[in-house]
Amino acid sequence: MTSTPTGPTIGVFDSGFGGLTVLRALLPLVPGARYLYLGDTARLPYGSKSRQTIARYAISSANFLADQGADRIVIACNTATALALDDLRGSLSIPITGVIEPGAQAVANVSSAGHVIVLATEATVQSRAYTRALKALGLKATEKACPLLVPLVEEGWTSHPVTAEVLRIYLSEALAAAPDATTLLLGCTHYPLLTPLIECTLTELGRPLTIIDSAGATAAAVAASIPASPGVTAQPTCKFFATDSIEKFQRLGARFLGQPLDKVELLDLDG
Amino acid sequence: MTSTPTGPTIGVFDSGFGGLTVLRALLPLVPGARYLYLGDTARLPYGSKSRQTIARYAISSANFLADQGADRIVIACNTATALALDDLRGSLSIPITGVIEPGAQAVANVSSAGHVIVLATEATVQSRAYTRALKALGLKATEKACPLLVPLVEEGWTSHPVTAEVLRIYLSEALAAAPDATTLLLGCTHYPLLTPLIECTLTELGRPLTIIDSAGATAAAVAASIPASPGVTAQPTCKFFATDSIEKFQRLGARFLGQPLDKVELLDLDG
Repeated sequence: MTSTPTGPTIGVFDSGFGGLTVLRALLPLVPGARYLYLGDTARLPYGSKSRQTIARYAISSANFLADQGADRIVIACNTATALALDDLRGSLSIPITGVIEPGAQAVANVSSAGHVIVLATEATVQSRAYTRALKALGLKATEKACPLLVPLVEEGWTSHPVTAEVLRIYLSEALAAAPDATTLLLGCTHYPLLTPLIECTLTELGRPLTIIDSAGATAAAVAASIPASPGVTAQPTCKFFATDSIEKFQRLGARFLGQPLDKVELLDLDG
Repeated sequence: MTSTPTGPTIGVFDSGFGGLTVLRALLPLVPGARYLYLGDTARLPYGSKSRQTIARYAISSANFLADQGADRIVIACNTATALALDDLRGSLSIPITGVIEPGAQAVANVSSAGHVIVLATEATVQSRAYTRALKALGLKATEKACPLLVPLVEEGWTSHPVTAEVLRIYLSEALAAAPDATTLLLGCTHYPLLTPLIECTLTELGRPLTIIDSAGATAAAVAASIPASPGVTAQPTCKFFATDSIEKFQRLGARFLGQPLDKVELLDLDG
């Protein structure tokens, strides 16, 4: 039978649109859930800000989602996971999943993995969170900050020659620093939109690494933590909150989610 | 004689580093002043946010500078000027100078000006503030949003082939839309760092337009509004406030100011 969701209420937040790639991967895996998505677009990007600032922002986002009835939280943002996961777990009593451990675990599950290149924002790289998570699984990481990739994705240049050139520069530098790497981890939720171009660039550079994306890995980890409801095929419901322009959130967000965003509500977290 | 400043206390604010190009132009023009500079780096960039959000941010920045003793305010940010100048003038009683009117006036002073291309952020372009200001002076404007230029400048790629290619794309589109344009106005305080590359690109495209930058024009307008103090050759003093990482503010800021930034204080405007 088909019904309205009776499963969990999953709160997902990010600094903006990128986390919608996590939600996109979650929808088919946990179809019986009610989803609340918060994009803190008034304060994006998190990737270039300090730990204290990001922790403060993340806590206000997670508290809002819990107040709205979320019974678990997904931090769909690498920077916020890297810099605020411990603070969040200390301030909320519901289950909280970040994107870093699932991403690292997915890499460990690839049998060929040994030395891993991680592409991420400046703040995520500076936190060294991926290096620590991968080291705990016996893997060596070379992290590469790629500050231009988020603006290029938001410009819509996901298959543009300029983006190809920027990727060629970033990937060449990373590959030179890690000549024995066999796996590439996309450590930012914007980057799955660049997967085809990254594959092409790696092939052109003669280094066809296995690509793992932490957005998909996180969705799989969240789904695995939720008991299945056999026989119930409910459609998920999604409600969206943004802290800045609704129009822009709907326009850009549709690219990341792969479908239109209805029901977006403007939210003021600054008080 | 040389003495400590006895002149005005000039409060300058921006979402981040770009406004330092205005301060850099001001220092030699009003050397007898005390300068307070606020970079609202925790909430940057303003360029992709909505009017309501930017007005709220701008008012909190200006109020802080007034509380610190500023007797005049310079909004060294095109986006904040475009979207918040009226709100600011309504909420403070001290003189407030934005960057748009001085930029437009400087263009009008170029005798060859008729049709003007304006390069700016998405939010500034959407506001149509330059089109209105130039129209009031009898000039026609073609505005072009250039969302990748700020991240490229902040990456330090001010003379990089990728930036040259992005400029070629943006400028070609703008020139095609304005075939009779003779003047190019840089409507973002980050862009003066790209002036040499913009000049080269225009020459390559066979369209060597006159370049006016609104940062320099604004500094000249502020200087003209302050009575000269003949015989006094005081050194200016500068105090800086940033709402996010001091280290990053000093590192990137030095590129924009052209000299080291001492005395940077961390500030929390979110309360």
